[in-house]
Amino acid sequence: MNSILITGGNRGLGLGLVKTLIRQQSLQKTQIIATYRLPEKSEELLALAKQNANVFPVLTDLTNLERYEQLVNEVGSIVKDEGLNILFNNAGISPKSTRLSFTKADDLVDTFFTNTVAPIMLTKELLPLLKRAADRQPEAPLGPGRACVVNMSSILGSIAENREGGLYAYRSSKAALNAATKSMSLDLLQSGIMAVALHPGWVKTEMGGSKAPLSVDESCDAIVKTLLSLNESHNGGFFQYDGKMLPW
Amino acid sequence: MNSILITGGNRGLGLGLVKTLIRQQSLQKTQIIATYRLPEKSEELLALAKQNANVFPVLTDLTNLERYEQLVNEVGSIVKDEGLNILFNNAGISPKSTRLSFTKADDLVDTFFTNTVAPIMLTKELLPLLKRAADRQPEAPLGPGRACVVNMSSILGSIAENREGGLYAYRSSKAALNAATKSMSLDLLQSGIMAVALHPGWVKTEMGGSKAPLSVDESCDAIVKTLLSLNESHNGGFFQYDGKMLPW
Repeated sequence: MNSILITGGNRGLGLGLVKTLIRQQSLQKTQIIATYRLPEKSEELLALAKQNANVFPVLTDLTNLERYEQLVNEVGSIVKDEGLNILFNNAGISPKSTRLSFTKADDLVDTFFTNTVAPIMLTKELLPLLKRAADRQPEAPLGPGRACVVNMSSILGSIAENREGGLYAYRSSKAALNAATKSMSLDLLQSGIMAVALHPGWVKTEMGGSKAPLSVDESCDAIVKTLLSLNESHNGGFFQYDGKMLPW
Repeated sequence: MNSILITGGNRGLGLGLVKTLIRQQSLQKTQIIATYRLPEKSEELLALAKQNANVFPVLTDLTNLERYEQLVNEVGSIVKDEGLNILFNNAGISPKSTRLSFTKADDLVDTFFTNTVAPIMLTKELLPLLKRAADRQPEAPLGPGRACVVNMSSILGSIAENREGGLYAYRSSKAALNAATKSMSLDLLQSGIMAVALHPGWVKTEMGGSKAPLSVDESCDAIVKTLLSLNESHNGGFFQYDGKMLPW
């Protein structure tokens, strides 16, 4: 694995993933590209980049689709001929609306845009770099040695596991992302690119709250382990941090 | 069942449902409310309303959420104290974009708005009328004798059954609608309102094309039969026209 791009890499799970990747002895030469939107909320990521030559922060607002072409150029200038091995669509939002009576159309649309449209469109734009990485190892098995799209989903996007109701904006955006992930896994297979949806567990982040049972480090250590073990059998599936398969 | 509201009742499956309902001997007194957007494309529905006193066409553009309050008032003036037994969120669109490379953000957003946001927001706005119907029969079992939300989904929204890929806008909008349906089924249960997602089969409509194996009548006859047999065991499920359960 020569390179990985993590969206929303300045805080929460995104920053946790950057830190876990830095700690991996086997990935000391892996380029870790992390997008961030607000410099004033990205001090830790920017400090990590100063200390680690393989960490590349890229300033971008993922809701601005017109910026994607420039983002792809920037990523291309980092990964060069090696291409991009892993696109980790991590950035997401979770509005506070809960029950149907309090659901707002704007929340539904904004959450869908950030959690579903942005990952789909970013994957589309980064396809040439993902294909380039996959083509470097044409005989290798599917996996992080070729190219993977990892979409950060949530157990809350599992329709089968929904026993609490509510959360229309968040749940529908993640179910939609899961649907897109399955289509990606079929559409991109012939290019040697696989796609999976990941649930990070219930994690102590701004989104998960302080009552969550998992620390960011625990979740990210397990996610990276799962990431490095991805193979053809995982393509198009929905897995939690530790590799356990989840129902749609 | 005193009343049913069908969105997009002027053509395709919506019009087919109106016709099938008119033909049911047991439903001669059921108020069939059908929304339509373009009078010039709704001649058959408007003619049916002239011939059948229990058919009520209501002109509305479902993408105009600001119009919903007025729509609810119009429906309320038709159903009066009986409330609304069934809300059939049928109206939907399917853009032509297929593979990832041709996917457009506008298609993703527009399709999500019409196929997911509109049914969620219309259900929210019609809750008082649905609750009124459910409250008329507080001891009756869940089902069309009380109140149901029926969301027209599609097998293309089944993530488990996706073996062809592509169709990002349509598939993700219907998976998102399925997620919302499951939340509705949990949130509204205490009010005596159930919710299901329905796949109409592959039907000879403008959307389904001429190669589809089912006629509109065949699909709608089966859907109405399934509709009339809905009970608590169906709540929160995903069923095809003939009642067969589908995976998420």
